[in-house]
Amino acid sequence: MSHLPVSKTAAAVQPFHVMKILGEAKALEAAGQDIIHLEIGEPDFPSLPCVHEAVNQAMQAGLTHYTPTLGLPALRQKLAEFYGQFYHAQVPMERIMLTPGSSSGLQLLLTAILNPGDKVMLTDPSYPCNRQFVNLLHGQVISVPVDASSQYQLNSDLLQAHWQEGIKVVMVASPANPTGTVIEQTELVKMAQFLAKQNAYLLVDEIYQGLVYQRPAESILAHPNLPDNVLVINSFSKFFGMTGWRLGWLVAPLALMPILDRLGQNLFLAAPTLSQYGALRVLEPDALAQLEERRQAFEMRRNALLNAMQQAGWQVSVQPQGAFYVYWDVSNLTDNAEQLALDILHHAKVAVTPGKDFGEFKAKHHIRLAYTTSPERLTEAVKRITDYLATR
Amino acid sequence: MSHLPVSKTAAAVQPFHVMKILGEAKALEAAGQDIIHLEIGEPDFPSLPCVHEAVNQAMQAGLTHYTPTLGLPALRQKLAEFYGQFYHAQVPMERIMLTPGSSSGLQLLLTAILNPGDKVMLTDPSYPCNRQFVNLLHGQVISVPVDASSQYQLNSDLLQAHWQEGIKVVMVASPANPTGTVIEQTELVKMAQFLAKQNAYLLVDEIYQGLVYQRPAESILAHPNLPDNVLVINSFSKFFGMTGWRLGWLVAPLALMPILDRLGQNLFLAAPTLSQYGALRVLEPDALAQLEERRQAFEMRRNALLNAMQQAGWQVSVQPQGAFYVYWDVSNLTDNAEQLALDILHHAKVAVTPGKDFGEFKAKHHIRLAYTTSPERLTEAVKRITDYLATR
Repeated sequence: MSHLPVSKTAAAVQPFHVMKILGEAKALEAAGQDIIHLEIGEPDFPSLPCVHEAVNQAMQAGLTHYTPTLGLPALRQKLAEFYGQFYHAQVPMERIMLTPGSSSGLQLLLTAILNPGDKVMLTDPSYPCNRQFVNLLHGQVISVPVDASSQYQLNSDLLQAHWQEGIKVVMVASPANPTGTVIEQTELVKMAQFLAKQNAYLLVDEIYQGLVYQRPAESILAHPNLPDNVLVINSFSKFFGMTGWRLGWLVAPLALMPILDRLGQNLFLAAPTLSQYGALRVLEPDALAQLEERRQAFEMRRNALLNAMQQAGWQVSVQPQGAFYVYWDVSNLTDNAEQLALDILHHAKVAVTPGKDFGEFKAKHHIRLAYTTSPERLTEAVKRITDYLATR
Repeated sequence: MSHLPVSKTAAAVQPFHVMKILGEAKALEAAGQDIIHLEIGEPDFPSLPCVHEAVNQAMQAGLTHYTPTLGLPALRQKLAEFYGQFYHAQVPMERIMLTPGSSSGLQLLLTAILNPGDKVMLTDPSYPCNRQFVNLLHGQVISVPVDASSQYQLNSDLLQAHWQEGIKVVMVASPANPTGTVIEQTELVKMAQFLAKQNAYLLVDEIYQGLVYQRPAESILAHPNLPDNVLVINSFSKFFGMTGWRLGWLVAPLALMPILDRLGQNLFLAAPTLSQYGALRVLEPDALAQLEERRQAFEMRRNALLNAMQQAGWQVSVQPQGAFYVYWDVSNLTDNAEQLALDILHHAKVAVTPGKDFGEFKAKHHIRLAYTTSPERLTEAVKRITDYLATR
């Protein structure tokens, strides 16, 4: 094998560092240890029983063939109605495309836009795959360090301060991973308007949409005076609780849709058919009511974790407003968050994600905690870690 | 939109020409016409009831979360056993990765290997997406025209005659689309051995594996003295009848697996979970027995179509040995197969695919017929077309 070729971009792709934590956590569990998992960005809830019933019916009806590349027309229409009813956004179904997970949506959009050497602005910290997608397309990442002073988000001032020629796309996420913070709609629209003048796109990751606490759920698409350079990716994984179903969607300007259709025909043919029938069901009012109960459960978890952290005297970098993450500032404890994460796993039996997975800026001073387990386990996790820290 | 950027590679992606045929066919159907569909590369059978039952059980058990990126370990193990039992091939599960459709497998492998400017050899005609994948990675397609003299396939002599520096991957398919021809295993191994000396890979598309007639099903992986430069992609769509489930797999050298794992983590996270549980079931002996019945049904269809074509005096470029396609030589009828396909649709009410979708070489003299419908409809289609041709 040593002489067989491997591409430079593939060789440079970094593994998720959390995988090392996850691997060691599983080894400890196999050895009989009780590990509390706060490292995984996946809700513990399975998908809804009504979704399973709908999928069962679709299977029995033999609906297991390919769908059109853009997705089932009925589901695109349903999503258009969903935007209208819940987000007061007028999004025609012609602008909506189903994708096999939001990862594919992101890849499709960046592939449709970027030539080699084109620049993409994103924040440090942010979702780690975003950088990899840009690198695989031979683009250049323009990384903007953000901290609590901007809620760990881009804003119009930061964007303009870091602006440079050659940027074709600016990526933001609201709510964000790993901090759970939200960008106000007025700020998003200001950024979109600035970028429209530069002939660049604003790509908004709304995959945690709906999972917000003590504030209304929003979409940038609701704004009435939005320029036509806004791209949105979304997912049935998080709010809708359908991770393993690998289904997401994107919203793009009408002019881009034929290109995305042709690219999708080649890259993946179509999103999984039964997942699309499941998604049709999960958008019904009774299913959405159950998802609202789950959102409230996440809110209780969030509050339980934040309370326990506060009582333990831990520093939280920024109050999370959505998703299911808290970005824990461990600068008073270590200059090596990755080692601390390993120590916490082995001594306190709690699995957490080091900041390094989300970038470089202040990464060695942060750990991400995912509240994807019960309030009791979250409180127990903080107690275990506190007990361990007292022994150091 | 006119000033918003679009990448050159995306703008250059061609639509499938069959989509125009399909669109017009659907319009005719909407107007009440009876159209016989011989244009679509998808079996008409739905997936098996036992698969549906297994998926239903998995849903009820709440097995709807992400799987590992490489796939469910149980399914990788089952595929390893499947290779042993049915193909006498020793393929350890560590070399097997589940992918969201074989499209993703192909993309993953080419992304892992190709730097910009690297060359990929493939045949003209061949599956149209292959060229697009190379172009999207800024690679260079080395297209080898093939005809009946080589069964529309590459062989060791052709490969060496067209060899040039910079080729990193040679792509073949057996059985092939659009001709249904098979490459003999000895020839495949000769090619792999030549390429091994050149530090290049042989990528074998086995997605129609199992769908062969009057000969045994094979895999290149069964050969005992195979060099380690062989890559295989496969799919649950064709033989296993699970198109809409979007599940395929790849087999790669061990040394490439960590890179493919990391790439997969970023590009798609994991293949659809329930499709993997369905695939576990479809590999059981009773399910495989049902699939063998379907294979026999395809064989009857193939024979019915070939007989009807022979009686009508049509020219078949090469006897198809597998898949579900016949490549019809229309050089005695037209120099514009695309126009003929449209005429056949509108006058004979039969939808067929023009050769243009598979390349350029002799494309204007060929039409692909897919025998994915009943023998009666296939015979009727030939009659309708014959009647129309008599009026021209």
